[in-house]
Amino acid sequence: MTRPHPAELFELTENGQLLSPTLQTPALRYLDGSIIDWLQEEANERERINIRRAQHGVRGLLLPWFDAARMWLVVILTGFGIGLTGGWLDVLVKWLGDLREGRCSYGFFYTQVTCCSSVKPGEACTEWRTWSEFLGVGPVLAQSLLHSFVYVSLAVVFAGSAAVLVKSYAPYAFHTGIPEIKAILGGYVLTAFLTPWTLFIKAIGLALAVASGLSLGKEGPLVHVACCMANILSDFFKQFRNNEAQKRKLLAAAAAAGVSVAFGSPLGGVLFGLEELATFANESEVMWRGFVASAVAAVSLQWVDPFGTSKLVLFQVTNGSDTWRAFELIPWVTLGVIGGILGSILIKLNVEAALYRRSSALNDWPVLEVIGVSAITAAISYLVVFSRVQASELVANLFQECDPTKIDYHGLCNPTAMWENVFLLVLTAAIKVLLTAWTFGMMIPAGIFLPTIAIGACLGRAVGLLTQGLHRAYPKAWIFLSCPPDLSMRCVSPGFYAVIGASAMLAGVTRMTISLVVILFELTGALSHVLPIMISVMTAKWVGDAFGKDGGIYAVWIAMRGYPWLPPTNFRDNGETGAQLMQPLERLVVIEDEQETVADLDTLLNDHNFHGFPVVRRQEFLGFVTRDKLRIALAPYLAEENADRLKRCVFSQRSSTSAEEQIDLSSLIEEAVLQLRPDVPKELVVSMFQKFNLRRIIFTTRGKLTGMVTLSDVVSLLTCNFPHTAALAPGERRSWG
Amino acid sequence: MTRPHPAELFELTENGQLLSPTLQTPALRYLDGSIIDWLQEEANERERINIRRAQHGVRGLLLPWFDAARMWLVVILTGFGIGLTGGWLDVLVKWLGDLREGRCSYGFFYTQVTCCSSVKPGEACTEWRTWSEFLGVGPVLAQSLLHSFVYVSLAVVFAGSAAVLVKSYAPYAFHTGIPEIKAILGGYVLTAFLTPWTLFIKAIGLALAVASGLSLGKEGPLVHVACCMANILSDFFKQFRNNEAQKRKLLAAAAAAGVSVAFGSPLGGVLFGLEELATFANESEVMWRGFVASAVAAVSLQWVDPFGTSKLVLFQVTNGSDTWRAFELIPWVTLGVIGGILGSILIKLNVEAALYRRSSALNDWPVLEVIGVSAITAAISYLVVFSRVQASELVANLFQECDPTKIDYHGLCNPTAMWENVFLLVLTAAIKVLLTAWTFGMMIPAGIFLPTIAIGACLGRAVGLLTQGLHRAYPKAWIFLSCPPDLSMRCVSPGFYAVIGASAMLAGVTRMTISLVVILFELTGALSHVLPIMISVMTAKWVGDAFGKDGGIYAVWIAMRGYPWLPPTNFRDNGETGAQLMQPLERLVVIEDEQETVADLDTLLNDHNFHGFPVVRRQEFLGFVTRDKLRIALAPYLAEENADRLKRCVFSQRSSTSAEEQIDLSSLIEEAVLQLRPDVPKELVVSMFQKFNLRRIIFTTRGKLTGMVTLSDVVSLLTCNFPHTAALAPGERRSWG
Repeated sequence: MTRPHPAELFELTENGQLLSPTLQTPALRYLDGSIIDWLQEEANERERINIRRAQHGVRGLLLPWFDAARMWLVVILTGFGIGLTGGWLDVLVKWLGDLREGRCSYGFFYTQVTCCSSVKPGEACTEWRTWSEFLGVGPVLAQSLLHSFVYVSLAVVFAGSAAVLVKSYAPYAFHTGIPEIKAILGGYVLTAFLTPWTLFIKAIGLALAVASGLSLGKEGPLVHVACCMANILSDFFKQFRNNEAQKRKLLAAAAAAGVSVAFGSPLGGVLFGLEELATFANESEVMWRGFVASAVAAVSLQWVDPFGTSKLVLFQVTNGSDTWRAFELIPWVTLGVIGGILGSILIKLNVEAALYRRSSALNDWPVLEVIGVSAITAAISYLVVFSRVQASELVANLFQECDPTKIDYHGLCNPTAMWENVFLLVLTAAIKVLLTAWTFGMMIPAGIFLPTIAIGACLGRAVGLLTQGLHRAYPKAWIFLSCPPDLSMRCVSPGFYAVIGASAMLAGVTRMTISLVVILFELTGALSHVLPIMISVMTAKWVGDAFGKDGGIYAVWIAMRGYPWLPPTNFRDNGETGAQLMQPLERLVVIEDEQETVADLDTLLNDHNFHGFPVVRRQEFLGFVTRDKLRIALAPYLAEENADRLKRCVFSQRSSTSAEEQIDLSSLIEEAVLQLRPDVPKELVVSMFQKFNLRRIIFTTRGKLTGMVTLSDVVSLLTCNFPHTAALAPGERRSWG
Repeated sequence: MTRPHPAELFELTENGQLLSPTLQTPALRYLDGSIIDWLQEEANERERINIRRAQHGVRGLLLPWFDAARMWLVVILTGFGIGLTGGWLDVLVKWLGDLREGRCSYGFFYTQVTCCSSVKPGEACTEWRTWSEFLGVGPVLAQSLLHSFVYVSLAVVFAGSAAVLVKSYAPYAFHTGIPEIKAILGGYVLTAFLTPWTLFIKAIGLALAVASGLSLGKEGPLVHVACCMANILSDFFKQFRNNEAQKRKLLAAAAAAGVSVAFGSPLGGVLFGLEELATFANESEVMWRGFVASAVAAVSLQWVDPFGTSKLVLFQVTNGSDTWRAFELIPWVTLGVIGGILGSILIKLNVEAALYRRSSALNDWPVLEVIGVSAITAAISYLVVFSRVQASELVANLFQECDPTKIDYHGLCNPTAMWENVFLLVLTAAIKVLLTAWTFGMMIPAGIFLPTIAIGACLGRAVGLLTQGLHRAYPKAWIFLSCPPDLSMRCVSPGFYAVIGASAMLAGVTRMTISLVVILFELTGALSHVLPIMISVMTAKWVGDAFGKDGGIYAVWIAMRGYPWLPPTNFRDNGETGAQLMQPLERLVVIEDEQETVADLDTLLNDHNFHGFPVVRRQEFLGFVTRDKLRIALAPYLAEENADRLKRCVFSQRSSTSAEEQIDLSSLIEEAVLQLRPDVPKELVVSMFQKFNLRRIIFTTRGKLTGMVTLSDVVSLLTCNFPHTAALAPGERRSWG
């Protein structure tokens, strides 16, 4: 058991510096890897507001209004910015993706759709040329080779350049970003994650990565981009720059806006913030900001209108039939079970892949890895028909019901080819599971949502086809009695089964519930089918939780990266009390009042890296003093020749000896530290950490210090059943801050 | 200042009785007017679960599953039940309402729609007869007199019987019920509020009240009915019957289902629970239950299909134009301001009416009052054309855009009659404001949502008509440049202005935000117009909050009824600490360890009605002992002849004198009481009460008791700026429990 104790991961690096001139209200600038002190930040904000309110006359009235105006400015600009970025990325991805197949004859920078926009419906578009047409290659074999060569090599070029960009300029732009955002919203400090460079590289790299056809989506990274924007914008205003808590409330709104743009789902964004990021808690004001940001972002996206449909709904479901039959619950619950199991498997595979990557030679050659995987992905995708198109297009086709008036995508609606279709769909899903498990974690921006939806949609469509086939084969069976007797009327809608499959798979991988249902229903516009979606999501979540007690892929990555984040789970103890959780007095480093000299305390500070120390007077708890305040207060006395070095320090005001012989440090004491008795239920201790974002709780019995619980103790308690905690902790990268 | 201190309102009546045989984990049955101890209830639940888990073999595995199954059974049955009830009430209301105008020739129990269902579209329906046709009254004047007589007298009969039912059988079935539900979900105990009788009377009374044409809606009462159902169902299972905290979690889900049925808005229900009831807090599990209940309820309602449209959307907005122009923000923000101001005025009028009712002779004649008001309402409604139809029909008509292919409701679309229409709409709104302010609070079930929507829709439509008229008069003005040049194309959609007006008015009255937007958008299906709705809601809320710092009509009623409920507002102190909030030691009644005899304690219990007492030993805080435990423990020694009466009681185990001379009560002490230092910010104290549903916090300094804050102190702190706190407290009614 050599894994580092989580405490070391974030308490060791915590060396704030005091910026404020007074010791009473220090505006601490936190270093990377530390956790902000929410209570302190809120107290600072309170003091700032009071100072502004106390201004005389019109200033006192106007200043609070300006504060609010600045806040809304950041919220609205973030929403607007991410809406534009999302729309612009969609166009860029479309153009890059089309480039892998051909180019427009009259201009290089046109996508296939804009190139053919002047062509009347029904006519063939002659302006768009495939590469063989454009280069004038005649023989069919040569054409085919050229096409596959361009297809694969452009994929490699796109993915490779994305990886180079990420590796060289912004290593934190890799991956989805949602685990980091969850940790940051919980109070973790990770400056490099939200810089303008990260924003720029993540956006460009994301477009390249998606266009390369790798098995990844843009949803999570868009949330990251939105948070970068909010962070950059908020840094323009002192009220947010100097207060990490206020800044985080803006980031929460930005995250909601990111989801809103990613799925065209403003409500889904708010509920994502609520459920997955667990940040709005009781603060309806923050939720409201998230709602405004989401709505602004959705409207901006609609204004850009990247798909030329002037619709927010990405995968419009053609509501073949508005009704569904009771027997369909059987395949739907089955899909839920499949989603739960496969989701757990995907998480486990992804963890194994990440651990292998870290321990093998691949760790040193991330760009080569990306190039290799993108080549393999492109080659396989080119061979398996369903995965040749971009995943979003595949999903849209799978969600579509069969309709004689529309183009039949790859013969999916051909009833005689049922078994072939089912085989192909399952094969595609299997390939995508393996590719996704590997891809999610490589050195490129990558979201997990879209690949998961694609896997689920393939399986769902397959189950739908099977059910439909069963109905066609045995139309008179009692189970199908509720179907219309006329076989030409549709009874089973395989397109909707694809939606169900996608929901179930998403629930299995992310373990989200309500926000998923809302996102899915906003994504497809299928209001009438909310109940089946809910049932499959619920089943998948239950099955997934039963199979892997990991809390979803984001929680797994947070644990692997070793971020100090408290899962919002309802922790249930077995009758234990806080006493079992706390570090008892014997193992604490405490400062004894009136006993230690300045030199002693200096030694103490050098020997121990804790964030602060309890001060006691013969076991009686006096208060808590942070290392930063102590270091600054001691600095003047530390010179070798200073006689004060050997004076004793007194922290309590009711000192017994005279003041000349002592150094009064009583102003350093934070008395407003939460104290509990050791016999409170463990559950309550955990829940206090969760609800108040605490860093520590002191335990006292009748005024005597008996122990202390820090955030890291609670984090390790809640993540103890995951074996790879901190396996991917950014070890040597810590210096990036 | 003779108003009772809130403490008296609910601490005085708190006399629980111990049911459990052991003193360690008493399953207290709470009496009416008390507040449940959430921490204790959670601890009991924890213990119950542990006992069940500890069962050997299959039982240990199955019992937790049964628990979950029972919980879901209650949730789903509640959703199903309220969906059916809602649909059934709709039909009943329609029938009763139609009865005021005529009857079906071939059957008394047919509504107009079902009576005419066999008639082909375009043909006149001859089966439905007005009363004059049915009774064969010829002369026009006689017809008119008969119609108005039946219209008014049936209104009086309906409203009167509703009032009689409520007054005689279930006084708590009056009003909306949402204030009580908010208090109950916060921990208040009010048994009579959730009985089968209340359920039955509220449902029947609601149908009668709505059909009488009084200015009231069915939304709030439906939430009440849903909560009654959940309460009754949960009483079948011991796990909920014996645990008030678990039961309240089910009630929260039921409330969401109620909203879902009231508005056909499953998502709105969840968000209502989230925002207005503030109960799901961090517990995503409870939120998920609410979601399931909402969805089941919506599907059941759809299955009943009371309107024969197989649609959930109540007021379908015909999306005349999907786009809106920037200049329209001016009328919309204006509507927001109007909504905010008028909402505050409505609240103030309602408060004045309620206070007047209480202090005047009306207090003793509630049924007569209802009869009088219903007669006046019916007479006025019969005269003012827009209010003659039921409010829901009026709203549907106002939300409708003008369309040459459809019937023009009362000439609203006639451009030459603009001023007449605007005058009539404003008059209708004004009348409805006055009637609603009086009606909401009478002795009948009454919701505030629908009247508010109707008022807002009238004003919104009026503003829309004015804007449209302005555009028609000056089509070339620069402000209308964004409109299509062709005047026959619609630029301004007055129907949508009605939606905006309704949103603004609702926000002004209820001060809800997100859930309102979601409800409105689910109610109308106007996804494309979410942003304007949001802007008007936000404006109205800001303006309303600036005008009246009351927190909306529900908060006002909670305060007037004197319920111990903490508003979820972000309380901001001005640098004060807990010391300013607490009752200092001098004013507390404490028990001194080893000092008081059994007789002393008995006197103490008789003299003071507090829920419990801190135990100290020379200022040192030892723990808290509740009056109920103490009373039971003392009972055996209290007989006059018992020599133990004069023995001293010891609460600490480290007793100094020998055990024979003392009575050991150390097992009674609750040590797990939250302790804080007096110098924590006041804000944090309030927020701890809000987040943990605490009943008290003890303040200690270095182990010494310095003060105590109880829930009532915090409630009075948060409601101090409302002058009529507890003005309507159910004084003599307390004995109802």
